[in-house]
Amino acid sequence: MNAKTQGLSIEPLTQEVFAPFGDLIQKQGHSHEEINYGRTRKYADLAHIDTGGHEGRAAVHIYRSQPVSLPFRIKVMEYHPLGSQAFIPLHDQPFLVIVAPPAETLACDSIRGFISNGEQGINLNKGVWHHYQLSLGEACDYLVIDRKGPGVDTIEQQLEINLFIEEFI
Amino acid sequence: MNAKTQGLSIEPLTQEVFAPFGDLIQKQGHSHEEINYGRTRKYADLAHIDTGGHEGRAAVHIYRSQPVSLPFRIKVMEYHPLGSQAFIPLHDQPFLVIVAPPAETLACDSIRGFISNGEQGINLNKGVWHHYQLSLGEACDYLVIDRKGPGVDTIEQQLEINLFIEEFI
Repeated sequence: MNAKTQGLSIEPLTQEVFAPFGDLIQKQGHSHEEINYGRTRKYADLAHIDTGGHEGRAAVHIYRSQPVSLPFRIKVMEYHPLGSQAFIPLHDQPFLVIVAPPAETLACDSIRGFISNGEQGINLNKGVWHHYQLSLGEACDYLVIDRKGPGVDTIEQQLEINLFIEEFI
Repeated sequence: MNAKTQGLSIEPLTQEVFAPFGDLIQKQGHSHEEINYGRTRKYADLAHIDTGGHEGRAAVHIYRSQPVSLPFRIKVMEYHPLGSQAFIPLHDQPFLVIVAPPAETLACDSIRGFISNGEQGINLNKGVWHHYQLSLGEACDYLVIDRKGPGVDTIEQQLEINLFIEEFI
């Protein structure tokens, strides 16, 4: 029996549509305060960094990710049961964000696809299923903020269907 | 009696010269591991995020800072006694980093000036004296990672001398 083949539609990333999965890290839609004698606008506290209690700590990495070309098959997704994970683009290229709500087993029909405008960063809540970064066009750097500490913090699952990203707006 | 007038020389930012003050957040000089099925290079754990024990948590902000023009007078510096503070440029413009070693009272002759190449981020160790960001040329965005929690976390001090940044390489 052949596995089912489906296309995944790609939506623009907004705070509203992304709320079930985590935070958008961007200035847009957030108020600011003036600090540093009026020379700096502070857009405060844009992400809920969750290090899963006292045994974990926040860690900072740079990921340099190769671009993918379309159509791209989503073969595997992962989640981190012990902490959040943020990706902030250190570039201005759009990139794809593929997520699904927390669940012990990934439900393929719950997968959503978004595209960042290249300025928008994301913070995935603890337990949110996601694909690794999908840069578009060229290799891009991301600042990553996640949890470091004891325990198995990554669970992967292969998809049971043939799910493709065929195009994006 | 007039206050003493001095110029502050500006040095290129390297991991070695910055080590007494904190971490450089950059790929250069760090090894990487291949993750995400070989599609991503991970430069891991580039900054020691210090939230000062269990009462604090890591917070993420965006700062948009106006540029300064030279000569610029360093009038006031600050430090955070309870946590580290990281600044990662979301742009590629050089910016100034003015710091001094931890001390209850700022010693003006211990102040050092550095210039980031626009790709280099910094993480200031807890207690390191620093000036607020000094963007050059245009208003620039920075991702900031610091501590949020109870307690007074910023101490400021006015300088007793007239300290100027007059030029940089």
